[in-house]
Amino acid sequence: MVDSKRVVKVALLGCGTVGGGVIRLLKENAAELATRIGAPVVVKRVLVRDAKKQRVPECEPGWITTDPEVVFGDSEIDLFVEVMGGENPAKSYVERALSLKKGVVSANKFMLARHGKALLAQAARAGVDLAFEASVGGGIPVIRTLREGLTSERILSIHGILNGTCNYILTRMRVEGLPFAEVLKDAQRLGYAEAEPSLDVDGHDATQKLVVLSMLAFGAQVDDKKVHVEGIRDIDELDFQFAERFGFTIKHLAIGVERGAKLELRAHAAMVPRSSVLANINGVLNGVFIRGAALGPCLLMGPGAGAMPTAVSVVADIVDVARASLEGTPGLSTRAIQPKPRELLDMTEVESRYYLRFDVNDEPGVLAVIAKALAEQSVSVEQLVQQGRGGTGATVPVVIITHQCREGSVLKAFEEVRKYKFMSVPPRLIRIEDV
Amino acid sequence: MVDSKRVVKVALLGCGTVGGGVIRLLKENAAELATRIGAPVVVKRVLVRDAKKQRVPECEPGWITTDPEVVFGDSEIDLFVEVMGGENPAKSYVERALSLKKGVVSANKFMLARHGKALLAQAARAGVDLAFEASVGGGIPVIRTLREGLTSERILSIHGILNGTCNYILTRMRVEGLPFAEVLKDAQRLGYAEAEPSLDVDGHDATQKLVVLSMLAFGAQVDDKKVHVEGIRDIDELDFQFAERFGFTIKHLAIGVERGAKLELRAHAAMVPRSSVLANINGVLNGVFIRGAALGPCLLMGPGAGAMPTAVSVVADIVDVARASLEGTPGLSTRAIQPKPRELLDMTEVESRYYLRFDVNDEPGVLAVIAKALAEQSVSVEQLVQQGRGGTGATVPVVIITHQCREGSVLKAFEEVRKYKFMSVPPRLIRIEDV
Repeated sequence: MVDSKRVVKVALLGCGTVGGGVIRLLKENAAELATRIGAPVVVKRVLVRDAKKQRVPECEPGWITTDPEVVFGDSEIDLFVEVMGGENPAKSYVERALSLKKGVVSANKFMLARHGKALLAQAARAGVDLAFEASVGGGIPVIRTLREGLTSERILSIHGILNGTCNYILTRMRVEGLPFAEVLKDAQRLGYAEAEPSLDVDGHDATQKLVVLSMLAFGAQVDDKKVHVEGIRDIDELDFQFAERFGFTIKHLAIGVERGAKLELRAHAAMVPRSSVLANINGVLNGVFIRGAALGPCLLMGPGAGAMPTAVSVVADIVDVARASLEGTPGLSTRAIQPKPRELLDMTEVESRYYLRFDVNDEPGVLAVIAKALAEQSVSVEQLVQQGRGGTGATVPVVIITHQCREGSVLKAFEEVRKYKFMSVPPRLIRIEDV
Repeated sequence: MVDSKRVVKVALLGCGTVGGGVIRLLKENAAELATRIGAPVVVKRVLVRDAKKQRVPECEPGWITTDPEVVFGDSEIDLFVEVMGGENPAKSYVERALSLKKGVVSANKFMLARHGKALLAQAARAGVDLAFEASVGGGIPVIRTLREGLTSERILSIHGILNGTCNYILTRMRVEGLPFAEVLKDAQRLGYAEAEPSLDVDGHDATQKLVVLSMLAFGAQVDDKKVHVEGIRDIDELDFQFAERFGFTIKHLAIGVERGAKLELRAHAAMVPRSSVLANINGVLNGVFIRGAALGPCLLMGPGAGAMPTAVSVVADIVDVARASLEGTPGLSTRAIQPKPRELLDMTEVESRYYLRFDVNDEPGVLAVIAKALAEQSVSVEQLVQQGRGGTGATVPVVIITHQCREGSVLKAFEEVRKYKFMSVPPRLIRIEDV
């Protein structure tokens, strides 16, 4: 039943491509949305920095304002939708909306990673909802699934391809055999990477999303700056050739694993078996592989970014928050998320299989030194390949796949090997994730 | 806030492995569930056929009854959970619960495929919820995703691996090179297939699930007996060898595609590219690939059956239905699902690429006959392989991969070819799905 006397009035904070998508979806699906919510939902205000900028035709000029006081001073607004991104003023706007006891929908991973716990607590105190499906995985309903679908479930681990730019670059490096720098340049030209690509290719974006997912999956409040993070700049063609040879492909993964009292969080490039579902999520697509105690394995895959997919998630949240508000019982979902500080596992304590690559001078005895250093740390070798002379000067790669071992042991073996003079570059390590 | 004065009292209808899993999860996660729902949830009655059967230790003997009157006569019950399966008495029990204006959670695909529209309408009239996440895809939150996550989305197509038994058998046939009959026997021994396997291996189970998904994805009310269905009994080792050669693998898919005024629904074995995410969903896992107008592609994968995964879905539904009931606003989700009759596309109008296999006597002129028959129907050949003499008597396989064409044209070409005497078995056709 649609209550035609009530209308849910929305204010958009920001109106870039995602905001435009939200406006479009709200118009196109008005009837359906009214049925789902129980009342029509309309946009009333759109707060922007530049009133003159061209927007989607569905955005009515009368909605636009550059004055936050106009938006927050309008007591008719039921629900605020933050699609501006960044830390501030987004955070202060969201705080202001919550202090007015209004529900908030946000697509802002950075704000949620840094201030999620405080904002959720503020929302809970105000008795309103703070929903953020669009902050992770674009159109993939991963937040919803963790929050609702797996209500009664204990999550054991998460392995996510959470950054579309990394996945795009690694996919093209593998398929076309091109070096990182060249694909990055092309990705920037095509709009898949920013002019300043560090947030994406150095793994920070994936880490922030991992921190947001950890709030839901592990009830954990974590400082994203304390999560071990590596990017993909060091991956080269030779690594892809060896990956191919050993039956792997290389993906940038954000990983969370319950380890008793501690939580293991890390984001880095990893070798995954080619037969894994994650290995076949290519291009800008994202994927989240969840392992639950009762459920077992579960994967969600879809577009991790893009205006319309992200807008689909924002609108799904608008429906939830508007319904709860209309029913007079908002805040239940938000209150159920109560992240607590969790101690992180030190990286030396991580256990994994490893791909190790030593670029060495082709001298007698080198293999023996490496093998001895690994053996002394109880790092057991599953496969070893010493490739014939390549094109890179006088060095040849010695590549080792280890059995499961502690990362600290590998690093100690690295220290020992580096005492010798047969390597001019540090050895490399890529973790193998059997997902 | 947990309302300690209120308690949500649940009656289970049936208590097999899924019911046992539900009881276990409700106990293990009691505190968390109370927070999510806003009140504790407890089991009060469990209706079974055999009171003496051994059950999970969490199931208290005082709950058990074999008398439906005890369960339906108990006015304290807030919510009925139907986990018995089959058409009757499940359907009459659900109708009775709805007539008492109580919310219902069901895991019953057959009942929903056959009577979903009527039961949803009854629930809507009664102003209560009928939730059925566990009816399709076990622990995969696909119903939830279609119902809520993609609220504002127009679904263009669904490709689902919906039957774990078929997927298990096809996976082993591919990996081990074994014939269907042998793997089926083994699957029966291991409990992955029923003694009477027809429901699974002939595609009926997948079809029923497709009909349930179509209610949500396409708003369609469809008679499952009118959906084109094929099983996997005819797939043999030679098909897998050719699939490998052409870069495909064979999966049993349930497919729904919007085709203008008509809806295309079908369930059958299909060739999918080995690089497809669906190709790498193996064993008893299920997967649903959804394509949306705004969202683009999206995949959900997970355990399609099993007591605990299915119980996770049932409990997620219990949370939803209990919350809505406690808030005094039940029925909104159910009312939003209003399936309408949709006309199905005739199979002759389906357009696809095809794998065609003619087992022919090795005589001159055979290829010319086949090529001419296809050409006359404008079926264009992409690849053709005529294999040397195999072990099967004097016949050799001629295998053709076609370009996109109408299925009716292929069938007409088959008719023409069958006029000749060089084939003792009918030609085979496996559709190629580029997902």
